[in-house]
Amino acid sequence: MTGMTASEGPTVGTLVLLRHGESDWNAKNLFTGWVDVDLSEKGENEARRGGELMREHSLLPDVVHTSVLRRAIRTAELALNVADRPWIAVRRSWRLNERHYGALQGKNKKQTLDEYGEEQFMLWRRSYDTPPPPIDDNDRWSQAGDSRYALLPPELMPRTECLKDVVERMLPYWYDSIVPDILAGRTVLVAAHGNSLRALVKHLDQISDEAIAKLNIPTGIPLRYDLDPQLRPLTLGGTYLDPAAAKEAAAAVANQGR
Amino acid sequence: MTGMTASEGPTVGTLVLLRHGESDWNAKNLFTGWVDVDLSEKGENEARRGGELMREHSLLPDVVHTSVLRRAIRTAELALNVADRPWIAVRRSWRLNERHYGALQGKNKKQTLDEYGEEQFMLWRRSYDTPPPPIDDNDRWSQAGDSRYALLPPELMPRTECLKDVVERMLPYWYDSIVPDILAGRTVLVAAHGNSLRALVKHLDQISDEAIAKLNIPTGIPLRYDLDPQLRPLTLGGTYLDPAAAKEAAAAVANQGR
Repeated sequence: MTGMTASEGPTVGTLVLLRHGESDWNAKNLFTGWVDVDLSEKGENEARRGGELMREHSLLPDVVHTSVLRRAIRTAELALNVADRPWIAVRRSWRLNERHYGALQGKNKKQTLDEYGEEQFMLWRRSYDTPPPPIDDNDRWSQAGDSRYALLPPELMPRTECLKDVVERMLPYWYDSIVPDILAGRTVLVAAHGNSLRALVKHLDQISDEAIAKLNIPTGIPLRYDLDPQLRPLTLGGTYLDPAAAKEAAAAVANQGR
Repeated sequence: MTGMTASEGPTVGTLVLLRHGESDWNAKNLFTGWVDVDLSEKGENEARRGGELMREHSLLPDVVHTSVLRRAIRTAELALNVADRPWIAVRRSWRLNERHYGALQGKNKKQTLDEYGEEQFMLWRRSYDTPPPPIDDNDRWSQAGDSRYALLPPELMPRTECLKDVVERMLPYWYDSIVPDILAGRTVLVAAHGNSLRALVKHLDQISDEAIAKLNIPTGIPLRYDLDPQLRPLTLGGTYLDPAAAKEAAAAVANQGR
């Protein structure tokens, strides 16, 4: 996939980011984090639409990286089937998981807002380095004992995370697993979550700890980054395959929990 | 997964074979081979039932191997989602593909039977070493130029296959990719096709070239093999998770094309 774009210099590879669509808990306005809820029917259709956009733009991945949460996994599966690329190589990592929401997992966003007030609520949701209280291992929404994390040493298993924590645990996977695929000339799809993708975009676009609070990535709309040999974006912020829908969707995400 | 079964000696690992269910072309009684048709709604439900059986029997794969054809890929996806294991490692290879049916691809089974007669029809369908005529690269059902085989050297790309050919191209993948997963102690799911699974079962159970003609593997019913340290089955023929349904389904498969 080595080539030139019209005015911007050499491209070493192409990255496509896809945030999963509505899950059963998004629909119910609950904090989800690492709880493994499935896509809603609307979320399934968002995934298929993402696949249609990739097909329409002939943006065809050679390999897909997902989290180990089924809303991202199934988004990749549904999108790739529509894009006629269900057969590509698949890689997964907990490092692409959504932010662990700690003790807020399973709680209603509106109730949490009412109970703790706007300031605390926004601190947990949008501050860079303030995690929610940790979840108890006995909480019904804890992932302690979940077999998919059986090989994860206890000191790596989060009980809560702020966005800074997500950046720190996501970056080793970017460098060790995604970058080699890009440098091998593959078009790489990353199907993941609001906060793991914000963490990646923060790194790619070198967004400050303050400015990242305002970045919302819309669901279901592939975001294309062509990267130069230093793995820096040729176009800051990348390019959405459906820019009008992306703008509309980002505004809607910003209003979540209201 | 190292352990002992009641009366049969040491188990080094567990293999689960799952043949995909009805595809759009099975429903239309067409020879499919390497043509990448999707599952029918019935086939999707067979896959989900396969996942239910694995969950009910607590037979939970740690890794899945599939062909590069979507009816096997989607069978694995649907089954693993129901079995609560959508997050396991995924590996794919063209070596697990269905037998290439040569010039018969896209042809109606009943019409082929009427046109060529019972003897020729059964020779193509069930003889060990007589392939159908090769498909022309310009045939609309040829896979020449399909991007999923772009890395396959031309001399490896089949234009027709008999079951012997399938055994020969499947076995290197068994030895090089599946066996290491089994020896690493993983429970391994192989989601594939009637003939690639017959090839594997022929090897595991050391079935003769003549006797394999009579073996039909039913669709959608997981077939469990516990293997000894020499990778030989503790129980010849393995164990279907739903033996009654397997018996009924095998009889139905034997009557295909009639």
